[in-house]
Amino acid sequence: MADTDLPFARIAIIGLGLIGSSIARAMRESMPDATITGYDIDPAVRARAREIGFAHEIVEDAARAVEGAQLVLFCVPVGAMNEAARAIATALPKDAVVSDVGSAKMAVAKALREALPDATIIPAHPVAGTENSGPDAGFASLFKGRWCILTPHEGASKQQVARLSDFWERLGARAETMDARHHDLVLAVTSHLPHLIAYTIVGTASDLEGVTEGEVIKYSAGGFRDFTRIAASDPVMWRDIFLNNREAVLDILQRFTEDLSLLQRAIRWGDGDTLFDLFTRTRAVRRSIVEQGQDDARPDFGRTH
Amino acid sequence: MADTDLPFARIAIIGLGLIGSSIARAMRESMPDATITGYDIDPAVRARAREIGFAHEIVEDAARAVEGAQLVLFCVPVGAMNEAARAIATALPKDAVVSDVGSAKMAVAKALREALPDATIIPAHPVAGTENSGPDAGFASLFKGRWCILTPHEGASKQQVARLSDFWERLGARAETMDARHHDLVLAVTSHLPHLIAYTIVGTASDLEGVTEGEVIKYSAGGFRDFTRIAASDPVMWRDIFLNNREAVLDILQRFTEDLSLLQRAIRWGDGDTLFDLFTRTRAVRRSIVEQGQDDARPDFGRTH
Repeated sequence: MADTDLPFARIAIIGLGLIGSSIARAMRESMPDATITGYDIDPAVRARAREIGFAHEIVEDAARAVEGAQLVLFCVPVGAMNEAARAIATALPKDAVVSDVGSAKMAVAKALREALPDATIIPAHPVAGTENSGPDAGFASLFKGRWCILTPHEGASKQQVARLSDFWERLGARAETMDARHHDLVLAVTSHLPHLIAYTIVGTASDLEGVTEGEVIKYSAGGFRDFTRIAASDPVMWRDIFLNNREAVLDILQRFTEDLSLLQRAIRWGDGDTLFDLFTRTRAVRRSIVEQGQDDARPDFGRTH
Repeated sequence: MADTDLPFARIAIIGLGLIGSSIARAMRESMPDATITGYDIDPAVRARAREIGFAHEIVEDAARAVEGAQLVLFCVPVGAMNEAARAIATALPKDAVVSDVGSAKMAVAKALREALPDATIIPAHPVAGTENSGPDAGFASLFKGRWCILTPHEGASKQQVARLSDFWERLGARAETMDARHHDLVLAVTSHLPHLIAYTIVGTASDLEGVTEGEVIKYSAGGFRDFTRIAASDPVMWRDIFLNNREAVLDILQRFTEDLSLLQRAIRWGDGDTLFDLFTRTRAVRRSIVEQGQDDARPDFGRTH
């Protein structure tokens, strides 16, 4: 029996990497009656997506992908949103909802609005991912239990926002709405700074004179390997995020640097109490994250031992 | 049939937390004929260790634990090594090998030598662990495929070093010898700095005005949660490591801070190429770690999705 209550019966996914292909895969499970049309600017990705078969159709032209679509989802790097939106501008159905999955919402809202001045745009950001990229990296359960943050502008219709929330909840996520500026600050803390730090430390470790890269790799289980996972994330995606959430990232980075200087001083002067107090406090944060189902409760993330 | 070829037939484990109890558990599997006597300064840990039963005997007195021991292993925080060694000084058998599992080898070598001037001391460091602590946190496969670094001083007998290497290899580890000073520098990079950074960022995120701790926890799957795992490690253990490997940690931290400033500048000035080049380079490091079996090949460390 067909599901007549679908939030969107026809959706177009522009960009078929980890996130785009995971959305398609999750839809095949939870909304099998919805029709998915996919497009990616890279011909090799389109060919591979066709082989895997997570969409009903992969088209060769972006504009064709959005024909008849009720929802158009841009799953491309933040810096590519404007160009991707321009490519479908003339073909976009009047009543379609336009959304995306980017990690910097103020910049994306602006980029989409500029390309599609009359469209119904509801930016969104599923806080989920892995270090892998491309159409083969996606999987249906990626959004399960994760949050998807919608950042509708003030004039957005409640019904359309509710439809998009419903869509994400059917994919397994929990939907939340938030002001775009606040989103960008929150994500600067919970995602962008962690990535920046991870990229930095992996770079630092690779460039030392006294320690070879071979040694760094060999003895990485002491903690370093944890950082290499997020430092293996897609370079284009992350370059774009930093360039498009500059203000919030620099703001949070400044705070981090101050805190790091304090610990540096504590180590230099042998102030064990300052170290101990912080290390005790940070333990509780981990506990809360596990309790709230935002990480694996098994030690070491559930790594094989 | 009894294993007559054991590197050590009787071993004393002083300190029954994650590492000490994992060694005992691993020995029960790979060296079932060896006798394990355990001691911990905390009566509650001794009682719990007796209940779990990973050692043949848990004694109430440190000196009694080492009676007849061929190997004495100190599995206590780096800052507690000296006191722990003093407590067994008079009871230590003349031919016993003394070793430890601490993460700062120059300081530990000095602390043990001071307490046990005539003993055969071979400091060692298994590069393995989880964020959990205490006798319940240990498990037999913790050292499997991980490296254990021995830092014998120049005068150490080759046979004794080989015996200790054999012991660690039977526990599943790969043994390696290294100069203590070099060990401390390598571990400052691969373990100490990553922990310091993780503790700092978790502290920074908990202390912001504009973003609540609830939000940080809720949206932690964007990357932040990775850092909370190592920032949940034992506070005493880590305070002691920073205080006892001060020079190398401050040295590496300086390098990290310089590299971070460079990225900060690149973000501020919109220099995407610098970001992209680094992010591409760091990807390769992850690949090598996985290829060399030092991390789980599954995406997201094998977390449940």
